[in-house]
Amino acid sequence: MRLSLTRHLPILDWGRRYSKSDLSSDLTAAVIVTIMLVPQSLAYAMLAGLPPEAGIYASVLPIMLYAIFGTSRALAVGPVAVVSLMTASAVGQVAESGTAGYAVAALTLALLSGLMLIVLGLLRFGFLANFLSHPVIAGFIIASGLLIAAGQARHIFGIAGGGDALPEILHRLWQHLAEANWQTLVIGLASTVFLVWVRKGMKPALKRLGAGDGLATLLTRAGPVFAIVVTTVTVWAFGLHEQGVAIVGTIPQGLPPLTLPDLSPGLIGTLALPAALISIIGFVESVSVAQTLAAKKRQRIGPDQELIGLGAANIGAAFSGGFPVTGGFARSVVNYDAGAATPAAGAFTAIGLALAALTLTPLLYFLPQATLAATIIVAVLSLVDPAILRRTWAYSRRDFASVVVTVLSTLLFGVEAGISTGVALSLLLHVLNTARPHVAEVGLVPGSQHFRNVLRHKVETLPGVLMLRVDESLYFANARAIETLVLDRLAADPAIREVVLMCSAVNVIDFSALESLEALATELAAQKVRLHLSEVKGPVMDRLKTTHFLRDLNGEVFLSQYDAWKSLAATGPTAKAG
Amino acid sequence: MRLSLTRHLPILDWGRRYSKSDLSSDLTAAVIVTIMLVPQSLAYAMLAGLPPEAGIYASVLPIMLYAIFGTSRALAVGPVAVVSLMTASAVGQVAESGTAGYAVAALTLALLSGLMLIVLGLLRFGFLANFLSHPVIAGFIIASGLLIAAGQARHIFGIAGGGDALPEILHRLWQHLAEANWQTLVIGLASTVFLVWVRKGMKPALKRLGAGDGLATLLTRAGPVFAIVVTTVTVWAFGLHEQGVAIVGTIPQGLPPLTLPDLSPGLIGTLALPAALISIIGFVESVSVAQTLAAKKRQRIGPDQELIGLGAANIGAAFSGGFPVTGGFARSVVNYDAGAATPAAGAFTAIGLALAALTLTPLLYFLPQATLAATIIVAVLSLVDPAILRRTWAYSRRDFASVVVTVLSTLLFGVEAGISTGVALSLLLHVLNTARPHVAEVGLVPGSQHFRNVLRHKVETLPGVLMLRVDESLYFANARAIETLVLDRLAADPAIREVVLMCSAVNVIDFSALESLEALATELAAQKVRLHLSEVKGPVMDRLKTTHFLRDLNGEVFLSQYDAWKSLAATGPTAKAG
Repeated sequence: MRLSLTRHLPILDWGRRYSKSDLSSDLTAAVIVTIMLVPQSLAYAMLAGLPPEAGIYASVLPIMLYAIFGTSRALAVGPVAVVSLMTASAVGQVAESGTAGYAVAALTLALLSGLMLIVLGLLRFGFLANFLSHPVIAGFIIASGLLIAAGQARHIFGIAGGGDALPEILHRLWQHLAEANWQTLVIGLASTVFLVWVRKGMKPALKRLGAGDGLATLLTRAGPVFAIVVTTVTVWAFGLHEQGVAIVGTIPQGLPPLTLPDLSPGLIGTLALPAALISIIGFVESVSVAQTLAAKKRQRIGPDQELIGLGAANIGAAFSGGFPVTGGFARSVVNYDAGAATPAAGAFTAIGLALAALTLTPLLYFLPQATLAATIIVAVLSLVDPAILRRTWAYSRRDFASVVVTVLSTLLFGVEAGISTGVALSLLLHVLNTARPHVAEVGLVPGSQHFRNVLRHKVETLPGVLMLRVDESLYFANARAIETLVLDRLAADPAIREVVLMCSAVNVIDFSALESLEALATELAAQKVRLHLSEVKGPVMDRLKTTHFLRDLNGEVFLSQYDAWKSLAATGPTAKAG
Repeated sequence: MRLSLTRHLPILDWGRRYSKSDLSSDLTAAVIVTIMLVPQSLAYAMLAGLPPEAGIYASVLPIMLYAIFGTSRALAVGPVAVVSLMTASAVGQVAESGTAGYAVAALTLALLSGLMLIVLGLLRFGFLANFLSHPVIAGFIIASGLLIAAGQARHIFGIAGGGDALPEILHRLWQHLAEANWQTLVIGLASTVFLVWVRKGMKPALKRLGAGDGLATLLTRAGPVFAIVVTTVTVWAFGLHEQGVAIVGTIPQGLPPLTLPDLSPGLIGTLALPAALISIIGFVESVSVAQTLAAKKRQRIGPDQELIGLGAANIGAAFSGGFPVTGGFARSVVNYDAGAATPAAGAFTAIGLALAALTLTPLLYFLPQATLAATIIVAVLSLVDPAILRRTWAYSRRDFASVVVTVLSTLLFGVEAGISTGVALSLLLHVLNTARPHVAEVGLVPGSQHFRNVLRHKVETLPGVLMLRVDESLYFANARAIETLVLDRLAADPAIREVVLMCSAVNVIDFSALESLEALATELAAQKVRLHLSEVKGPVMDRLKTTHFLRDLNGEVFLSQYDAWKSLAATGPTAKAG
């Protein structure tokens, strides 16, 4: 019982061994992450189509709950770019951004997502996330980054717009371009250029000016805060909000409120599929970040417990005015670099953000939306990594096709269609690949007991003996292909009297394949050809033993291919070099 | 050019070598099959919801075209039970049975199905049929048989009814049961009992009476014709059609008419998916019959050319007043048993049926529908073979689940939903199975160079060396599972300094798995553990050579697992017996 409690409440494990040095590390990390998270939270709330305070609310209770239930020491949970985009796309189907219904639907989405994550965790179904292949994830993140950047461009121009897919977004931008507000454009472009410089050029420049590495890193991290302060002061000083520059405006001062999601069946029906996709995408993003950071310290995370941690965080978001959250890459890396030792760092960050919500929000009244848009654009464009295209192209056309199709379908049809198409395509390509299996004719590598492909290696064969290595599990999609292949070989070479199927790569023989093998055995027996098997694996053999097949077989089952060779060489003519 | 023409027009091959003895065999077979096909064609037209003559029309031109383009010597093409049921289900969505629109939609369905089959054949996509596993096909045929029998029961009672799924069919039967016509019921039940006896008891009884085997077989085949003659005469003699016994009525006398399918986009849109399912089911049924019969004479059929043959037959049906057709089991077996030597037997059967359409149809005016229903019920119930449930249960729960789910979803939701669910489930189960791969720790079988599972065989291992045989291709769905498994083993046993992944069963390493292997290699290098590979297959090695992985690997790639053993045994402590 104790063990199980510790498994589901990791806090009982690390909390018991919490030390003073852990406390000081965690506090330092929390201060740094809090400073970074204030503007980021506002920006991602805007991306999700919600009022800015929702971004802060989504970072308080969720972080606390993750600290209790999650297993990663460094993961920082909150709104992230891709999930915020998916939220906007899902909630946009049921309500208009800016209405009360929209905010309530976002709560419902977070609740559904949280419940799904917890159920998957309790069922230990974390492995399902593996069905998102790396090419599909990479393609999805590239396309999401481009969609987000294109979607935020209207805030840089200060015009109306919107849309879920790239053609729509670009069309609306074009329609409204004439209405662009030049003051907004100046602030937006200047912020973008400055933030790009912060990412690429600021640290080397500071070092050239003589700053130490630690100071340079700290100042670089504070770059976005600097942009926010300067543009906010500029708007206030010149009264630019009266000249059409859109500002954040009044943010309610206070702790996250208690909120109740709308549980009407119609809404749940519409949001169920988006919630499932958000859960899986959020989980995959979060787990890959957590695993990367854990591996650096030789720690292990528990994927099934991670599902529960993220689920608790999302349920927290649903009841405290937030929206769907997950573990974010940028904030987690900052948390890790700043020396976070335990999940308590997250809890301290949450407290920091709660204090910010209580005290700082009036200062953000004049913050221009264009600055937040610039923050988002620069952040997401750093996710767009076209190298994956080159790397998959070099390795395998199949993986390349997965990337390209995921990118294009996401850009053209939106996030939900894009990710679904990517997953379906990668599964289909895998199955099609196994449906036409590789079968090699093998011979003995001279001087060894090892058998390899006659076309690739200099090997010996036995006359009248066909030795085939089947390079795939035998199941319904390829069972008949093997049968056809053997019969075609026999028809082409009437001298063959013995056929050995080397099953070292056969991991499963399903019922359809068994029937196909039985048909093959009957056919070979009629042609007075013996059929042998070799190197049949334990689990496969266990299953074959329950059938008539082995009893009816006119040949033998050899433990190793070399045993088959010895036996058949003893009864037939001698070997010939190949 | 000649070669390709012969491939796509098999008639050029067998036609050139046609002999007098072939002619006499084919003519004999044609007479027997024609007698059998007249009542069967009427019955399946009724099952498809079409007027009886459509069944005969669907057997004339399609048979001719299959004789030109098909590769099987014995396959008899025409309306079959399952495809007729699927036709009724599909066309019933767009028109009311008995209307002109219904008959025209059936033509459209045949045309779409024919075009799809030809396109699949030209693309050489015949292997797609393998995605219907044996358990799914068996389950689908069981459920279709039950659905058809339940659907025909109303004709035995002489009442109204209908429906696509079992609950609906049974509910309507129940609603109308009070309206049953007792004269119809007597004819229907008597026919059913008689036909069951024809199948089970007639041949032994005739033999007991002293009839030779040939005569007994011939009389048994004529059983349905006898039932039709007796019940038709009974209706005529007693004027039962005036007492509510439904009869076939006027069948237009004449050759199949030229008909044009309706090509409106709306209709094509609705019928496209049913047409695809009918094509695949029809193809699978036809090919398995053709393969079974061809194997008996050591002949081979060409699955891709079969698609073209069946496609041509369906296009023929579309333009000559028919409906979707395929190769039928019962009629093909009769054709084969009667000694058909070439596809010309089919052409002669077509001529026989055309003559029947010209001359015999007035004689069928008083044929009761209940007799035709009895013919159908007895035929389809012989397809219901519950042994598949026991056999799959004994062999594998996964295959058993495929049968049961296909049966239930077909019965409850109809043929299209049933077959789609079956295919999706069997693919899903296969993929889930590969997502949690079997990994065996292996050791050397003493006195050999062969390696087997340490848990199943008495083998030798090397201290500090972990040798794992991965029993699955490495791809996105399981890549992370292998990484986790190796790291967990290392965490549990800090003495391990060398890890060998034996890749004899790894047929593919996709991009996701490559990234996972790279992460594992990096992690092992950090822990000062060497990672080796052995028995990597040619195609997998070709692909790995295009990457950094092999260059960065801190261990070696051994040709055989025994080479790995020799190398590691030479550098480390000596082997210990396991």
